[in-house]
Amino acid sequence: MRDVLAEAAFALFLERGFERTTVDDIVSRAGVGRRSFFRYFPSKEDAVFPDHERCLADMTAFLEAAGDAEPVDAVCDAARIVLRMYAANPEFSVQRYRLTREVPGLRTYELSVVRRYERTLAGYLERRCDGARDGALRAEVIAASVVAAHNNALRSWLRSGGEGDAEAAVDHALGIVRETWGSGAGRPPAVPAADGEVIVMVAAKGAPMWRVVQQIESALGER
Amino acid sequence: MRDVLAEAAFALFLERGFERTTVDDIVSRAGVGRRSFFRYFPSKEDAVFPDHERCLADMTAFLEAAGDAEPVDAVCDAARIVLRMYAANPEFSVQRYRLTREVPGLRTYELSVVRRYERTLAGYLERRCDGARDGALRAEVIAASVVAAHNNALRSWLRSGGEGDAEAAVDHALGIVRETWGSGAGRPPAVPAADGEVIVMVAAKGAPMWRVVQQIESALGER
Repeated sequence: MRDVLAEAAFALFLERGFERTTVDDIVSRAGVGRRSFFRYFPSKEDAVFPDHERCLADMTAFLEAAGDAEPVDAVCDAARIVLRMYAANPEFSVQRYRLTREVPGLRTYELSVVRRYERTLAGYLERRCDGARDGALRAEVIAASVVAAHNNALRSWLRSGGEGDAEAAVDHALGIVRETWGSGAGRPPAVPAADGEVIVMVAAKGAPMWRVVQQIESALGER
Repeated sequence: MRDVLAEAAFALFLERGFERTTVDDIVSRAGVGRRSFFRYFPSKEDAVFPDHERCLADMTAFLEAAGDAEPVDAVCDAARIVLRMYAANPEFSVQRYRLTREVPGLRTYELSVVRRYERTLAGYLERRCDGARDGALRAEVIAASVVAAHNNALRSWLRSGGEGDAEAAVDHALGIVRETWGSGAGRPPAVPAADGEVIVMVAAKGAPMWRVVQQIESALGER
Protein backbone atom coordinates (compact mmCIF):
# COMPACT_ATOMS: atom_id res chain seq x y z
CA MET A 1 0.00 0.00 0.00
CA ARG A 2 2.78 2.40 0.98
CA ASP A 3 4.69 1.56 -2.22
CA VAL A 4 1.55 1.91 -4.33
CA LEU A 5 0.88 5.36 -2.90
CA ALA A 6 4.49 6.48 -3.36
CA GLU A 7 4.49 5.27 -6.99
CA ALA A 8 1.17 6.96 -7.76
CA ALA A 9 2.39 10.18 -6.14
CA PHE A 10 5.67 10.19 -8.03
CA ALA A 11 4.05 9.45 -11.38
CA LEU A 12 1.68 12.40 -10.85
CA PHE A 13 4.48 14.73 -9.73
CA LEU A 14 6.32 13.99 -12.98
CA GLU A 15 3.17 14.40 -15.12
CA ARG A 16 1.63 17.51 -13.54
CA GLY A 17 4.33 18.95 -11.33
CA PHE A 18 4.62 18.71 -7.56
CA GLU A 19 2.67 21.85 -6.66
CA ARG A 20 -0.26 21.09 -8.98
CA THR A 21 -0.75 17.56 -7.64
CA THR A 22 -3.09 17.24 -4.64
CA VAL A 23 -3.34 14.41 -2.13
CA ASP A 24 -6.81 13.75 -3.59
CA ASP A 25 -5.22 13.22 -7.01
CA ILE A 26 -2.78 10.74 -5.49
CA VAL A 27 -5.32 8.64 -3.59
CA SER A 28 -7.61 8.65 -6.60
CA ARG A 29 -4.79 7.31 -8.82
CA ALA A 30 -3.86 4.72 -6.20
CA GLY A 31 -7.49 3.72 -5.71
CA VAL A 32 -7.54 4.24 -1.93
CA GLY A 33 -9.08 6.65 0.57
CA ARG A 34 -7.57 9.96 1.61
CA ARG A 35 -6.86 8.82 5.14
CA SER A 36 -4.70 5.97 3.84
CA PHE A 37 -2.27 8.53 2.44
CA PHE A 38 -1.76 10.27 5.76
CA ARG A 39 -1.40 6.96 7.54
CA TYR A 40 1.80 6.41 5.58
CA PHE A 41 3.05 9.92 4.84
CA PRO A 42 2.79 13.02 7.06
CA SER A 43 2.94 15.23 3.95
CA LYS A 44 3.23 15.25 0.15
CA GLU A 45 6.96 15.88 0.53
CA ASP A 46 7.41 12.64 2.47
CA ALA A 47 5.94 10.67 -0.43
CA VAL A 48 8.81 11.92 -2.64
CA PHE A 49 11.38 10.44 -0.26
CA PRO A 50 9.71 7.23 0.90
CA ASP A 51 12.96 5.41 1.77
CA HIS A 52 14.79 7.87 4.01
CA GLU A 53 13.13 6.78 7.25
CA ARG A 54 14.12 3.17 6.67
CA CYS A 55 17.58 4.27 5.59
CA LEU A 56 18.02 6.34 8.78
CA ALA A 57 16.93 3.32 10.82
CA ASP A 58 19.40 1.11 8.92
CA MET A 59 22.19 3.62 9.56
CA THR A 60 21.40 3.76 13.28
CA ALA A 61 21.33 -0.03 13.52
CA PHE A 62 24.59 -0.31 11.58
CA LEU A 63 26.36 2.11 13.93
CA GLU A 64 24.96 0.38 17.01
CA ALA A 65 26.48 -2.85 15.72
CA ALA A 66 29.80 -1.25 14.73
CA GLY A 67 31.50 -2.24 17.99
CA ASP A 68 35.09 -1.07 18.22
CA ALA A 69 35.60 -0.38 14.51
CA GLU A 70 37.76 2.65 13.72
CA PRO A 71 35.18 5.44 14.18
CA VAL A 72 35.83 7.38 10.96
CA ASP A 73 35.73 4.15 8.94
CA ALA A 74 32.44 3.27 10.64
CA VAL A 75 30.73 6.57 9.73
CA CYS A 76 32.05 6.36 6.15
CA ASP A 77 30.58 2.85 5.88
CA ALA A 78 27.33 4.11 7.40
CA ALA A 79 27.15 6.89 4.79
CA ARG A 80 27.47 4.26 2.04
CA ILE A 81 24.07 2.89 3.12
CA VAL A 82 22.52 6.10 1.75
CA LEU A 83 24.40 5.81 -1.54
CA ARG A 84 23.26 2.22 -1.99
CA MET A 85 19.64 3.32 -1.52
CA TYR A 86 20.04 5.81 -4.38
CA ALA A 87 22.07 3.44 -6.58
CA ALA A 88 19.53 0.61 -6.18
CA ASN A 89 17.11 2.51 -8.42
CA PRO A 90 19.06 4.89 -10.67
CA GLU A 91 16.17 5.96 -12.92
CA PHE A 92 13.92 6.91 -10.00
CA SER A 93 16.81 8.63 -8.19
CA VAL A 94 17.74 10.73 -11.22
CA GLN A 95 14.13 11.75 -11.89
CA ARG A 96 13.65 12.66 -8.25
CA TYR A 97 16.87 14.68 -8.25
CA ARG A 98 15.57 16.73 -11.19
CA LEU A 99 12.20 17.22 -9.51
CA THR A 100 13.89 18.30 -6.27
CA ARG A 101 15.97 20.92 -8.11
CA GLU A 102 12.73 22.53 -9.35
CA VAL A 103 10.66 22.59 -6.14
CA PRO A 104 11.98 24.73 -3.26
CA GLY A 105 9.86 22.83 -0.72
CA LEU A 106 11.53 19.57 -1.73
CA ARG A 107 14.98 21.11 -1.47
CA THR A 108 14.36 22.22 2.11
CA TYR A 109 12.83 18.83 2.90
CA GLU A 110 16.02 17.23 1.59
CA LEU A 111 18.17 19.55 3.72
CA SER A 112 16.25 18.39 6.82
CA VAL A 113 16.87 14.76 5.93
CA VAL A 114 20.56 15.39 5.29
CA ARG A 115 20.78 17.10 8.67
CA ARG A 116 19.25 14.02 10.34
CA TYR A 117 21.87 11.77 8.71
CA GLU A 118 24.56 14.17 9.86
CA ARG A 119 23.20 14.19 13.44
CA THR A 120 23.12 10.38 13.43
CA LEU A 121 26.78 10.17 12.38
CA ALA A 122 27.83 12.94 14.79
CA GLY A 123 26.00 11.28 17.69
CA TYR A 124 27.88 8.03 17.07
CA LEU A 125 31.25 9.80 16.80
CA GLU A 126 30.58 11.75 19.98
CA ARG A 127 29.81 8.56 21.90
CA ARG A 128 33.03 7.02 20.57
CA CYS A 129 35.02 10.09 21.70
CA ASP A 130 33.85 9.27 25.23
CA GLY A 131 34.30 12.67 26.81
CA ALA A 132 37.56 13.58 25.08
CA ARG A 133 38.34 17.30 24.87
CA ASP A 134 36.41 18.92 22.00
CA GLY A 135 34.75 15.55 21.37
CA ALA A 136 31.36 17.00 20.36
CA LEU A 137 33.02 19.63 18.20
CA ARG A 138 35.21 17.13 16.36
CA ALA A 139 32.27 14.77 15.98
CA GLU A 140 30.19 17.49 14.29
CA VAL A 141 33.04 18.54 12.01
CA ILE A 142 33.88 14.98 10.93
CA ALA A 143 30.20 14.11 10.37
CA ALA A 144 29.79 17.25 8.25
CA SER A 145 32.89 16.28 6.22
CA VAL A 146 31.56 12.78 5.61
CA VAL A 147 28.15 14.07 4.52
CA ALA A 148 29.68 16.75 2.26
CA ALA A 149 32.01 14.25 0.57
CA HIS A 150 29.26 11.66 0.15
CA ASN A 151 26.81 14.22 -1.25
CA ASN A 152 29.35 15.75 -3.60
CA ALA A 153 29.89 12.36 -5.25
CA LEU A 154 26.20 11.43 -5.12
CA ARG A 155 25.13 14.73 -6.73
CA SER A 156 27.73 14.41 -9.50
CA TRP A 157 26.38 10.97 -10.28
CA LEU A 158 22.75 12.20 -10.23
CA ARG A 159 23.61 15.22 -12.41
CA SER A 160 25.28 12.91 -14.93
CA GLY A 161 21.97 11.06 -15.26
CA GLY A 162 23.21 8.05 -13.29
CA GLU A 163 26.20 7.35 -15.56
CA GLY A 164 29.33 5.67 -14.21
CA ASP A 165 30.10 3.89 -10.98
CA ALA A 166 28.43 5.75 -8.11
CA GLU A 167 29.98 3.50 -5.46
CA ALA A 168 33.51 4.09 -6.76
CA ALA A 169 32.91 7.86 -6.85
CA VAL A 170 31.65 7.87 -3.25
CA ASP A 171 34.54 5.65 -2.12
CA HIS A 172 36.99 8.11 -3.67
CA ALA A 173 35.29 11.09 -2.00
CA LEU A 174 35.15 9.39 1.40
CA GLY A 175 38.82 8.48 0.97
CA ILE A 176 39.69 12.16 1.36
CA VAL A 177 37.80 12.31 4.65
CA ARG A 178 39.43 9.12 5.92
CA GLU A 179 42.89 10.37 5.00
CA THR A 180 42.18 13.61 6.80
CA TRP A 181 40.33 12.50 9.92
CA GLY A 182 40.95 8.76 10.22
CA SER A 183 43.28 7.23 12.79
CA GLY A 184 46.08 7.13 10.20
CA ALA A 185 45.72 10.83 9.35
CA GLY A 186 48.93 12.86 9.36
CA ARG A 187 51.14 9.79 9.70
CA PRO A 188 53.27 8.61 6.79
CA PRO A 189 52.32 5.20 5.43
CA ALA A 190 53.91 2.43 7.46
CA VAL A 191 57.07 0.96 5.91
CA PRO A 192 57.88 -2.54 7.07
CA ALA A 193 61.31 -2.83 8.67
CA ALA A 194 63.80 -4.35 6.27
CA ASP A 195 66.23 -7.04 7.45
CA GLY A 196 69.28 -5.43 8.94
CA GLU A 197 67.60 -2.04 9.46
CA VAL A 198 69.05 -0.14 12.40
CA ILE A 199 67.15 2.38 14.45
CA VAL A 200 69.39 5.35 15.20
CA MET A 201 68.60 7.54 18.17
CA VAL A 202 68.94 11.22 17.50
CA ALA A 203 69.15 14.07 19.95
CA ALA A 204 70.09 17.71 19.62
CA LYS A 205 72.98 18.87 21.78
CA GLY A 206 71.59 20.11 25.10
CA ALA A 207 68.06 19.04 24.18
CA PRO A 208 65.74 18.45 27.16
CA MET A 209 64.74 14.87 27.89
CA TRP A 210 61.16 15.32 26.63
CA ARG A 211 62.56 16.36 23.25
CA VAL A 212 64.78 13.27 23.16
CA VAL A 213 61.82 11.01 23.94
CA GLN A 214 59.72 12.82 21.34
CA GLN A 215 62.44 12.26 18.75
CA ILE A 216 62.71 8.56 19.56
CA GLU A 217 58.96 8.15 19.28
CA SER A 218 58.93 10.09 16.05
CA ALA A 219 61.79 8.00 14.59
CA LEU A 220 60.04 4.77 15.57
CA GLY A 221 56.77 5.99 14.07
CA GLU A 222 58.48 6.83 10.80
CA ARG A 223 60.47 3.67 10.46
CA MET B 1 10.28 50.48 8.09
CA ARG B 2 11.97 47.11 7.63
CA ASP B 3 13.33 47.21 11.18
CA VAL B 4 9.97 48.31 12.58
CA LEU B 5 8.25 45.38 10.88
CA ALA B 6 10.89 42.88 12.04
CA GLU B 7 10.62 44.15 15.63
CA ALA B 8 6.82 44.04 15.62
CA ALA B 9 6.90 40.54 14.16
CA PHE B 10 9.40 39.23 16.68
CA ALA B 11 7.58 40.73 19.66
CA LEU B 12 4.37 39.02 18.52
CA PHE B 13 6.11 35.69 17.89
CA LEU B 14 7.37 35.74 21.49
CA GLU B 15 3.99 36.79 22.89
CA ARG B 16 1.65 34.54 20.89
CA GLY B 17 3.89 31.99 19.23
CA PHE B 18 5.02 31.92 15.62
CA GLU B 19 2.18 29.85 14.20
CA ARG B 20 -0.56 31.85 15.89
CA THR B 21 0.74 35.20 14.64
CA THR B 22 -0.58 36.32 11.24
CA VAL B 23 0.89 38.86 8.85
CA ASP B 24 -2.21 40.99 9.58
CA ASP B 25 -1.29 40.98 13.29
CA ILE B 26 2.22 42.14 12.41
CA VAL B 27 1.25 45.01 10.11
CA SER B 28 -1.42 46.11 12.60
CA ARG B 29 1.18 46.24 15.41
CA ALA B 30 3.64 48.07 13.16
CA GLY B 31 0.92 50.47 11.96
CA VAL B 32 1.46 49.84 8.23
CA GLY B 33 -0.40 48.21 5.35
CA ARG B 34 -0.23 44.51 4.52
CA ARG B 35 1.61 45.08 1.24
CA SER B 36 4.45 46.82 3.11
CA PHE B 37 5.24 43.56 4.86
CA PHE B 38 5.65 41.60 1.64
CA ARG B 39 7.72 44.38 0.11
CA TYR B 40 10.38 43.63 2.73
CA PHE B 41 9.86 39.97 3.57
CA PRO B 42 8.79 37.17 1.22
CA SER B 43 7.36 35.24 4.18
CA LYS B 44 6.83 35.29 7.95
CA GLU B 45 9.95 33.14 8.34
CA ASP B 46 12.09 35.80 6.66
CA ALA B 47 11.03 38.34 9.29
CA VAL B 48 12.58 36.11 11.99
CA PHE B 49 15.97 36.27 10.26
CA PRO B 50 16.07 39.84 8.94
CA ASP B 51 19.90 40.10 8.82
CA HIS B 52 20.95 36.98 6.92
CA GLU B 53 20.61 38.50 3.45
CA ARG B 54 22.89 41.39 4.38
CA CYS B 55 25.27 38.99 6.12
CA LEU B 56 25.45 36.79 3.00
CA ALA B 57 26.18 39.89 0.92
CA ASP B 58 28.90 40.96 3.39
CA MET B 59 30.44 37.48 3.23
CA THR B 60 30.45 37.51 -0.57
CA ALA B 61 32.03 40.97 -0.65
CA PHE B 62 34.63 39.94 1.94
CA LEU B 63 35.66 36.89 -0.09
CA GLU B 64 35.79 38.89 -3.32
CA ALA B 65 38.23 41.25 -1.61
CA ALA B 66 40.28 38.45 -0.01
CA GLY B 67 42.89 38.49 -2.77
CA ASP B 68 45.64 35.89 -2.31
CA ALA B 69 45.01 35.24 1.39
CA GLU B 70 45.49 31.62 2.49
CA PRO B 71 42.13 30.15 1.36
CA VAL B 72 41.21 28.26 4.55
CA ASP B 73 42.05 31.33 6.65
CA ALA B 74 39.87 33.42 4.34
CA VAL B 75 36.78 31.21 4.73
CA CYS B 76 37.29 31.02 8.51
CA ASP B 77 37.40 34.83 8.62
CA ALA B 78 34.33 34.97 6.39
CA ALA B 79 32.46 32.66 8.79
CA ARG B 80 33.27 35.03 11.66
CA ILE B 81 31.06 37.65 9.96
CA VAL B 82 28.08 35.45 10.83
CA LEU B 83 29.17 35.08 14.43
CA ARG B 84 29.56 38.83 14.81
CA MET B 85 26.01 39.35 13.55
CA TYR B 86 24.72 37.03 16.32
CA ALA B 87 27.05 38.44 18.98
CA ALA B 88 26.06 42.05 18.19
CA ASN B 89 22.67 41.44 19.80
CA PRO B 90 22.92 38.58 22.30
CA GLU B 91 19.46 38.93 23.83
CA PHE B 92 17.68 38.86 20.48
CA SER B 93 19.91 36.02 19.22
CA VAL B 94 19.20 33.86 22.28
CA GLN B 95 15.44 34.48 22.13
CA ARG B 96 15.41 33.69 18.44
CA TYR B 97 17.41 30.51 19.02
CA ARG B 98 14.78 29.34 21.54
CA LEU B 99 11.95 30.23 19.16
CA THR B 100 13.66 28.39 16.30
CA ARG B 101 14.01 25.22 18.42
CA GLU B 102 10.23 25.18 18.88
CA VAL B 103 9.04 25.83 15.32
CA PRO B 104 9.91 23.20 12.67
CA GLY B 105 9.35 25.70 9.85
CA LEU B 106 11.99 28.00 11.32
CA ARG B 107 14.45 25.14 11.70
CA THR B 108 14.16 24.23 8.03
CA TYR B 109 14.40 27.91 7.09
CA GLU B 110 17.61 28.09 9.10
CA LEU B 111 18.97 24.98 7.36
CA SER B 112 18.42 26.70 3.99
CA VAL B 113 20.30 29.78 5.17
CA VAL B 114 23.16 27.67 6.51
CA ARG B 115 23.34 25.89 3.18
CA ARG B 116 23.64 29.24 1.38
CA TYR B 117 26.56 30.26 3.61
CA GLU B 118 28.17 26.89 2.95
CA ARG B 119 27.70 27.29 -0.83
CA THR B 120 29.24 30.78 -0.67
CA LEU B 121 32.34 29.48 1.13
CA ALA B 122 32.61 26.42 -1.12
CA GLY B 123 32.29 28.56 -4.26
CA TYR B 124 35.19 30.73 -3.12
CA LEU B 125 37.35 27.72 -2.23
CA GLU B 126 36.61 26.09 -5.56
CA ARG B 127 37.67 29.22 -7.45
CA ARG B 128 40.88 29.32 -5.41
CA CYS B 129 41.57 25.66 -6.25
CA ASP B 130 41.65 26.72 -9.88
CA GLY B 131 40.93 23.38 -11.50
CA ALA B 132 43.07 21.27 -9.16
CA ARG B 133 42.15 17.59 -8.96
CA ASP B 134 39.16 17.05 -6.66
CA GLY B 135 38.97 20.83 -6.24
CA ALA B 136 35.17 21.00 -6.02
CA LEU B 137 35.07 18.01 -3.69
CA ARG B 138 37.67 19.43 -1.32
CA ALA B 139 35.99 22.84 -1.46
CA GLU B 140 32.66 21.33 -0.35
CA VAL B 141 34.27 19.28 2.42
CA ILE B 142 36.28 22.20 3.81
CA ALA B 143 33.29 24.57 3.63
CA ALA B 144 31.15 22.00 5.48
CA SER B 145 33.87 21.66 8.13
CA VAL B 146 34.03 25.42 8.63
CA VAL B 147 30.27 25.73 8.93
CA ALA B 148 30.02 22.77 11.32
CA ALA B 149 32.78 24.13 13.57
CA HIS B 150 31.34 27.65 13.54
CA ASN B 151 27.82 26.44 14.26
CA ASN B 152 28.92 24.09 17.03
CA ALA B 153 30.49 27.00 18.92
CA LEU B 154 27.65 29.39 18.05
CA ARG B 155 24.99 26.92 19.24
CA SER B 156 26.84 26.25 22.52
CA TRP B 157 26.91 29.98 23.16
CA LEU B 158 23.22 30.38 22.30
CA ARG B 159 22.26 27.38 24.45
CA SER B 160 24.17 28.90 27.38
CA GLY B 161 21.96 31.97 27.09
CA GLY B 162 24.71 34.10 25.57
CA GLU B 163 27.18 33.58 28.42
CA GLY B 164 30.94 33.73 27.86
CA ASP B 165 33.05 34.86 24.95
CA ALA B 166 31.41 33.74 21.71
CA GLU B 167 34.26 35.00 19.53
CA ALA B 168 36.86 33.05 21.52
CA ALA B 169 34.74 29.89 21.29
CA VAL B 170 34.36 30.24 17.53
CA ASP B 171 38.09 30.98 17.14
CA HIS B 172 38.87 27.80 19.04
CA ALA B 173 36.47 25.73 16.91
CA LEU B 174 37.78 27.18 13.65
CA GLY B 175 41.32 26.48 14.88
CA ILE B 176 40.61 22.76 14.52
CA VAL B 177 39.56 23.28 10.90
CA ARG B 178 42.61 25.42 10.14
CA GLU B 179 44.95 22.86 11.71
CA THR B 180 43.33 20.13 9.64
CA TRP B 181 42.81 21.77 6.26
CA GLY B 182 44.98 24.91 6.28
CA SER B 183 48.29 25.21 4.44
CA GLY B 184 50.15 24.24 7.64
CA ALA B 185 48.06 21.07 8.13
CA GLY B 186 49.98 17.89 8.92
CA ARG B 187 53.21 19.74 9.74
CA PRO B 188 54.42 19.88 13.30
CA PRO B 189 54.50 23.37 14.81
CA ALA B 190 57.76 25.14 14.00
CA VAL B 191 60.28 25.13 16.88
CA PRO B 192 62.92 27.84 16.64
CA ALA B 193 66.46 26.47 16.64
CA ALA B 194 68.14 27.01 20.00
CA ASP B 195 71.71 28.26 20.19
CA GLY B 196 74.13 25.35 19.93
CA GLU B 197 71.46 22.95 18.63
CA VAL B 198 72.88 20.26 16.40
CA ILE B 199 71.02 18.74 13.50
CA VAL B 200 71.72 15.03 13.33
CA MET B 201 71.18 13.09 10.13
CA VAL B 202 69.59 9.70 10.60
CA ALA B 203 69.61 6.81 8.17
CA ALA B 204 68.83 3.13 8.52
CA LYS B 205 71.65 0.76 7.57
CA GLY B 206 71.25 -0.20 3.93
CA ALA B 207 68.46 2.29 3.37
CA PRO B 208 67.96 3.40 -0.24
CA MET B 209 69.00 6.96 -1.10
CA TRP B 210 65.39 8.23 -1.38
CA ARG B 211 64.80 7.12 2.20
CA VAL B 212 67.93 8.95 3.36
CA VAL B 213 66.79 12.15 1.63
CA GLN B 214 63.32 11.73 3.09
CA GLN B 215 64.81 11.36 6.56
CA ILE B 216 66.95 14.49 6.18
CA GLU B 217 63.94 16.49 5.04
CA SER B 218 61.90 15.10 7.88
CA ALA B 219 64.59 15.92 10.47
CA LEU B 220 64.88 19.48 9.13
CA GLY B 221 61.12 19.91 9.21
CA GLU B 222 60.94 18.72 12.81
CA ARG B 223 63.77 20.83 14.16
